[in-house]
Amino acid sequence: MSISLTILGCHSATPRTFAYPTSQFLSINNEHFLIDCGEGTQVQLRKHKVKFSKISRIFISHLHGDHYFGLVGLISTFSLYQRQTELHIYGPKGIKEITELQLKLGKSFLSYDLVFHELGSKKSELIFESDKVSVFTIPLNHRVYTNGYLFKEKIGERKLNMAAVGKIKDIDTCDYQNLKNGKDFILENGTVIKNEKLTSNPPPPKSYAFCSDTSFYPKIVPLIKDVDLLYHESTFLESDAKLATKTKHSTASEASTIAQQAQVNQLILGHFSSRYTDESLFLKEALNQFENVVLAKEGLVISI
Amino acid sequence: MSISLTILGCHSATPRTFAYPTSQFLSINNEHFLIDCGEGTQVQLRKHKVKFSKISRIFISHLHGDHYFGLVGLISTFSLYQRQTELHIYGPKGIKEITELQLKLGKSFLSYDLVFHELGSKKSELIFESDKVSVFTIPLNHRVYTNGYLFKEKIGERKLNMAAVGKIKDIDTCDYQNLKNGKDFILENGTVIKNEKLTSNPPPPKSYAFCSDTSFYPKIVPLIKDVDLLYHESTFLESDAKLATKTKHSTASEASTIAQQAQVNQLILGHFSSRYTDESLFLKEALNQFENVVLAKEGLVISI
Repeated sequence: MSISLTILGCHSATPRTFAYPTSQFLSINNEHFLIDCGEGTQVQLRKHKVKFSKISRIFISHLHGDHYFGLVGLISTFSLYQRQTELHIYGPKGIKEITELQLKLGKSFLSYDLVFHELGSKKSELIFESDKVSVFTIPLNHRVYTNGYLFKEKIGERKLNMAAVGKIKDIDTCDYQNLKNGKDFILENGTVIKNEKLTSNPPPPKSYAFCSDTSFYPKIVPLIKDVDLLYHESTFLESDAKLATKTKHSTASEASTIAQQAQVNQLILGHFSSRYTDESLFLKEALNQFENVVLAKEGLVISI
Repeated sequence: MSISLTILGCHSATPRTFAYPTSQFLSINNEHFLIDCGEGTQVQLRKHKVKFSKISRIFISHLHGDHYFGLVGLISTFSLYQRQTELHIYGPKGIKEITELQLKLGKSFLSYDLVFHELGSKKSELIFESDKVSVFTIPLNHRVYTNGYLFKEKIGERKLNMAAVGKIKDIDTCDYQNLKNGKDFILENGTVIKNEKLTSNPPPPKSYAFCSDTSFYPKIVPLIKDVDLLYHESTFLESDAKLATKTKHSTASEASTIAQQAQVNQLILGHFSSRYTDESLFLKEALNQFENVVLAKEGLVISI
């Protein structure tokens, strides 16, 4: 069980030679997701040696260009490489129309199926579930309809206590799976051995919450309570709090307040405005409210 | 009078870390144009230190992603920088709908006016004219409706022959403009002095033709006859001629045959497929038909 997050871009607004708009590659137990896809994401994927073909689902937060203008290019590139497996796109209503219009006008016929899951609810929803992971929306408060996403590992199998198991001759290797699934063991003489005596709890499932873009919005706190890792946008510093309010973005201080209220384990700050040359100020400001903070950086990999 | 062309990207298909899709910046007598705008063009503009705000008109050849997926991002960036002057976009029918849909869904209100000139004719048309330059379409033959563009300087003012002008006392500096415009001079005594005795011909107007993407299409030869500079796509080498035919692209040999037939002064080859690691093979192949050939390269600047 593991989560690995790679930051492909973490700056606001327009791509520059030294700063890419939002995109993240997330692996959870061998499922591979892309979160947001600003212009240039496919180049960032190559640069950071992420294998494109692994991505099965793309989650778009909102329809501002710095979060999705790279999507149609990536979709086209997948086809150029003769992708066969279907690709699922989650995002606000409208994303299907935009993408299909561009493909239609270019007379592009994809080599694979594109499956859109358009979102419109203002309540948190379970939007994807497999045996390894669940993904929920985190409705945010921005200038357009926006969702963050919460990725939660499923609880894994119980761990065999081999010392205890080894003592019981009746237990065969073919019984192991039942034990991992939590079943009690019944000896040939009918005696029941409680599962807890033969196994231990699985490692606690990990979780990652992506929250961008949004104003300071404490309504999300119950949704992201106790997550292991929270990415929260901090476009501005407190000195520009008025601008943050006006544009419905957050300051570093507000992002860390959310982290503190939700008692997350670690906070990553990102979506920095290009007006700031010294990004260490974001860290300094956030540390006033919450201590386990890192600044996002292109190429940063965080494993939980 | 001068033309300066900067290659921002010259590779086919998808952007890579070392290869950008089609885009060119063209300056003619202080008018500034962008030709095509593949994903990542705005980063290339920054990298090559082209001042964004100078661009007044953008010419899109066709609606394949590698020629326009960077357009909406660039349009958005102009607005972020509070552009005030209107921006003109020339391109195939559909470009307005795509762009406006994306701006609408992002609730983006631009700081400037966007003026679309949608093209649909299969005949060459004059699509823009100022006192310095004329722009004509060059209908090409590709899988979707595609135009190349021909940029022609206007004939400049006649040059004063100061030795001859200085000998005639009646001529005042305020008469110079009339002479540059080709008017004869009439002395106080009524004698007419022919303009040709006082001025010489202006330098011949320069011209640049952009032809991408297209199959081998000799119908364009009369349109680009004698141009000073021709950019012609050469996606493939002759060894892949079948693929060129199938995908309606050209080989280096075909591109140089067009250059030779049109008796252009210089040919630039571009839009190279990523399948070739040794691009000097394009040059070698083209030189069989035409001798003044250069390979396009990101950052290459050619002045006429």
